[in-house]
Amino acid sequence: MESPFKERISRLVYLMRSSGIAGAIVSPGTNLLYLTGLSPSATLERLFVLLISSNGEVKLLAPKLYENELKNVSIDVTIWSDSQNPYEVLISIISKCFGSDGKIAVDDNMQAYHMLKIYGFLRKYDLMPLSSFISKLRIIKDEYEISVMREAAKIADKTLERIISEDLRGKKEKEVARLIQNEVIEQGADNFSFDAIVASGPNGANPHHMPTDRRISEGDILIIDFGAKYRGYCSDITRTFSIGKPPERAVEVYEIVKEAQERAFQAVREGVTASEIDAVARDVIARRGYGDRFTHRTGHGLGLDIHEEPYIAPSSEVELKNGMVFTIEPGIYLEGKFGVRIEDDVAIISGKGERLTMTARELIAL
Amino acid sequence: MESPFKERISRLVYLMRSSGIAGAIVSPGTNLLYLTGLSPSATLERLFVLLISSNGEVKLLAPKLYENELKNVSIDVTIWSDSQNPYEVLISIISKCFGSDGKIAVDDNMQAYHMLKIYGFLRKYDLMPLSSFISKLRIIKDEYEISVMREAAKIADKTLERIISEDLRGKKEKEVARLIQNEVIEQGADNFSFDAIVASGPNGANPHHMPTDRRISEGDILIIDFGAKYRGYCSDITRTFSIGKPPERAVEVYEIVKEAQERAFQAVREGVTASEIDAVARDVIARRGYGDRFTHRTGHGLGLDIHEEPYIAPSSEVELKNGMVFTIEPGIYLEGKFGVRIEDDVAIISGKGERLTMTARELIAL
Repeated sequence: MESPFKERISRLVYLMRSSGIAGAIVSPGTNLLYLTGLSPSATLERLFVLLISSNGEVKLLAPKLYENELKNVSIDVTIWSDSQNPYEVLISIISKCFGSDGKIAVDDNMQAYHMLKIYGFLRKYDLMPLSSFISKLRIIKDEYEISVMREAAKIADKTLERIISEDLRGKKEKEVARLIQNEVIEQGADNFSFDAIVASGPNGANPHHMPTDRRISEGDILIIDFGAKYRGYCSDITRTFSIGKPPERAVEVYEIVKEAQERAFQAVREGVTASEIDAVARDVIARRGYGDRFTHRTGHGLGLDIHEEPYIAPSSEVELKNGMVFTIEPGIYLEGKFGVRIEDDVAIISGKGERLTMTARELIAL
Repeated sequence: MESPFKERISRLVYLMRSSGIAGAIVSPGTNLLYLTGLSPSATLERLFVLLISSNGEVKLLAPKLYENELKNVSIDVTIWSDSQNPYEVLISIISKCFGSDGKIAVDDNMQAYHMLKIYGFLRKYDLMPLSSFISKLRIIKDEYEISVMREAAKIADKTLERIISEDLRGKKEKEVARLIQNEVIEQGADNFSFDAIVASGPNGANPHHMPTDRRISEGDILIIDFGAKYRGYCSDITRTFSIGKPPERAVEVYEIVKEAQERAFQAVREGVTASEIDAVARDVIARRGYGDRFTHRTGHGLGLDIHEEPYIAPSSEVELKNGMVFTIEPGIYLEGKFGVRIEDDVAIISGKGERLTMTARELIAL
């Protein structure tokens, strides 16, 4: 496969020109990875930036530590050493390549730490978030990206299969979260895509619960939500289980969530808007009287970032297109009792939705 | 123990006033944790900020998701819901509490993503990094903080003891890194303080090497560098081992690094500057002819962040004081061959340096 980076940078430069943007400042993170394949570890407070001007100049400014790693990079690299002030170097490159005023796009990932070092200088420019136009590229995944995301989803499926084959009774939520994270790597992932959520019993009523020392026990409804990162791309899956025979109320709620998830998935096709998908899931839940218990959006885009465009939310007017990948994850949360959420990763291929995560969606009693 | 947060915020407000700063914007991360004890998980793109004005007003702006978690917080909380634009709320609070111009301190951890959302508004203020004065508080650890950091160091010691009791021959660097990270948690840490570095043979010549699939083998010099996070506070330890009998050159280099580390440690006392400590280590290594192979600073401050003030570097004129905690970690790196680094965490107590990490510093053959 030919390296996609040159093409991606060209397309970004084209977008910059058509929006009248003089230059872009890209920080370590997923935008840098998308544009160069570079993922420098542990830059911390050390300035490491990619600079792209609208006339196509591309320069990398990096600390001496990374000199060896960058030897084979086909980008013009400027290395700064400990005896230099890297911000002076940065300012001189920006002045030379971006001009002395106008619009500059700044990476959303950039830390204020670095921005503030040159704020006096930056202040004369109009700044805008890089995401506002790089997301137009990143939102559409090519065949290679989809194949990698399929693999990331498969790792999540296999991990879940292994985890529920163990006896979870008596284990702490935290322990299960660690088991999951280890298994994700065992199954071939680079990493897990976010800290696993393991929410048992009443803890499940908080959609963003972080694992505690609570032990999973008979009668619990159990939410497991995690993902794998494979070659930089994320998967994200949620399933809800019962420990032993589920109470009637849980079965009822589960079936509503399952129907909402299925209908929203069936509604996915090229040309509909993200808000329409959200509405399908929300309507199913509202009609059954749980509208106010579905307290979050229906889904989020997925890619190098675990949350990216397109968001599947009431206010999201993005039109769905081939190559978009996102989650569909409605849920119902009953405070003090339990929660239910079912989440799949969905790609639009040949005009229709296709699930990347394949784990069964029936309520399984463990 | 009484909660230290009120006192910390008061002292911050005092510093703000004496520097003529109208307000501070604090983001999730270690500054927020230091000032409030809050460590909201997974805020991602959702705006969550603490606002502190120089007249002592303290307000927290948080997404609805966190409403329950924040119920018992003794701070004035404003919750924003999905139907609101949180940046409008933010702007109105800043306008009201900080005034319409002047200096504002922005958390170094804040993402450009959020800053850019209100850049048009922020632009009229002078912005400065919050770290430039909150570090004056954080750099001095109180008794409680030192006791917690002692525990974090002890966890690192115990982890290392366990790891080197296993046979590492034939294991991949990546596997050993995972073993370490799991053991850190097994030993009672909240988390590891950074991704463990396991650098074998020639990989050790890169001080920031990330673990690979390379298998550890007979004759390798092996660098292990990791830390534990305990109640939010970090430890950080490095030891260098030989797999089997070490080659003569390695023994020679090891002894130089060990002497540099020991002398720098002995030089630690109240009133000397960080650069003096750096010079002690650097001189030992330079006198033995390896000056250009010691390619990084001698150490960094440690606390809620793994890298913070005081940096032990040639240009660091910070005067050392009781309550400061930092690493001393000289190293020598021979490209294509191996590296040696020895790192301890050191606190200044009653005027003198005290090691928090206790693992032996002799060259151990595994």
